[in-house]
Amino acid sequence: MAASLLDQLMSSLRCLPGVGAKSAQRMAYHLLERDREGGRRLAAVMAKAMQQIGHCQRCRTLSEQELCQICSSKKRDSHLICVVETPSELAVIENSIDYRGHYFVLGGRLSPIDGIGPRELGLDLLAVRLEEGEIEEVILATNATVEGEVTARYIHDMADARGIKTTRIAQGVPMGGELEYIDGATLAHAFAGRSNF
Amino acid sequence: MAASLLDQLMSSLRCLPGVGAKSAQRMAYHLLERDREGGRRLAAVMAKAMQQIGHCQRCRTLSEQELCQICSSKKRDSHLICVVETPSELAVIENSIDYRGHYFVLGGRLSPIDGIGPRELGLDLLAVRLEEGEIEEVILATNATVEGEVTARYIHDMADARGIKTTRIAQGVPMGGELEYIDGATLAHAFAGRSNF
Repeated sequence: MAASLLDQLMSSLRCLPGVGAKSAQRMAYHLLERDREGGRRLAAVMAKAMQQIGHCQRCRTLSEQELCQICSSKKRDSHLICVVETPSELAVIENSIDYRGHYFVLGGRLSPIDGIGPRELGLDLLAVRLEEGEIEEVILATNATVEGEVTARYIHDMADARGIKTTRIAQGVPMGGELEYIDGATLAHAFAGRSNF
Repeated sequence: MAASLLDQLMSSLRCLPGVGAKSAQRMAYHLLERDREGGRRLAAVMAKAMQQIGHCQRCRTLSEQELCQICSSKKRDSHLICVVETPSELAVIENSIDYRGHYFVLGGRLSPIDGIGPRELGLDLLAVRLEEGEIEEVILATNATVEGEVTARYIHDMADARGIKTTRIAQGVPMGGELEYIDGATLAHAFAGRSNF
């Protein structure tokens, strides 16, 4: 017997991150019993989003247009480019600090063992932008993981070869972080990166 | 400016129970960056489910057909009917215990203050089934809340007037429940309902 539509809905909902069998069941019943209109709207928007949202041709973030809003804006500082791993990290920066430069989204980090090399991260595209001559500083905002550091180092070398300055976002103790609970590697970075008070 | 498709997707995802702004963002990025195929499939199944899943004409649970699988099965005991509040409670009973009778799904509980009376719960439909003469026992499995109790009492009276036996599922200490942490009302029920050991 084919799975019922209700079972199909529950199993499809599990493609969402953090949704297991119990949550999927709860979601399916909630939509069917109490919010069919919301379910219909969500289904329509989701289908449209999967279809129409592509990547910006210039910075590779998610975008409905060929150029994202940031890349097509005339108000941004074109001398500054911030390199991040994912579109969601771009959104975090954009929503929390007053950064006015441009971005470049790698879509991952160098990881030869997973077959992710410079080409997969669009570094040829980044090279073209560095060649254009407008960029004066590359801010490396890849994650503070081993692969993130390797990726930052690789991009630093790319920029350095073209005489462009690179900076790396600071590592140290996070706001509200208590020394007692902070790992040794972070603490080592915090000490090494200490500045005058 | 109209909200971008990405923003629309995030806000639509919040119609799911337990999904706030942060989870919705995480889900949207996850689907777009890593599982477009899953997102497409989910959108299609969801649209179809909202459209095609209705209610069983006989027991009012969710069903794609006029009669649900349980109501149309010849193997179920037609002398026994279990009254529950929601389709998900029916699913819980069906999946956890070996109950072979039929069901009736109220879709809520009597709550005059919210405008939910006997008609809204389909009790006219239940009355028809009680009149048919096949049912010998009505198992009242509404929730152990004030409204659930009132609803159970109301249905008991309906069945009693037709000379049909009603039973109420037992209340007491749940499996693994430690007395220290159990509320007084549950404990009172557990003592009142004690049986020979």
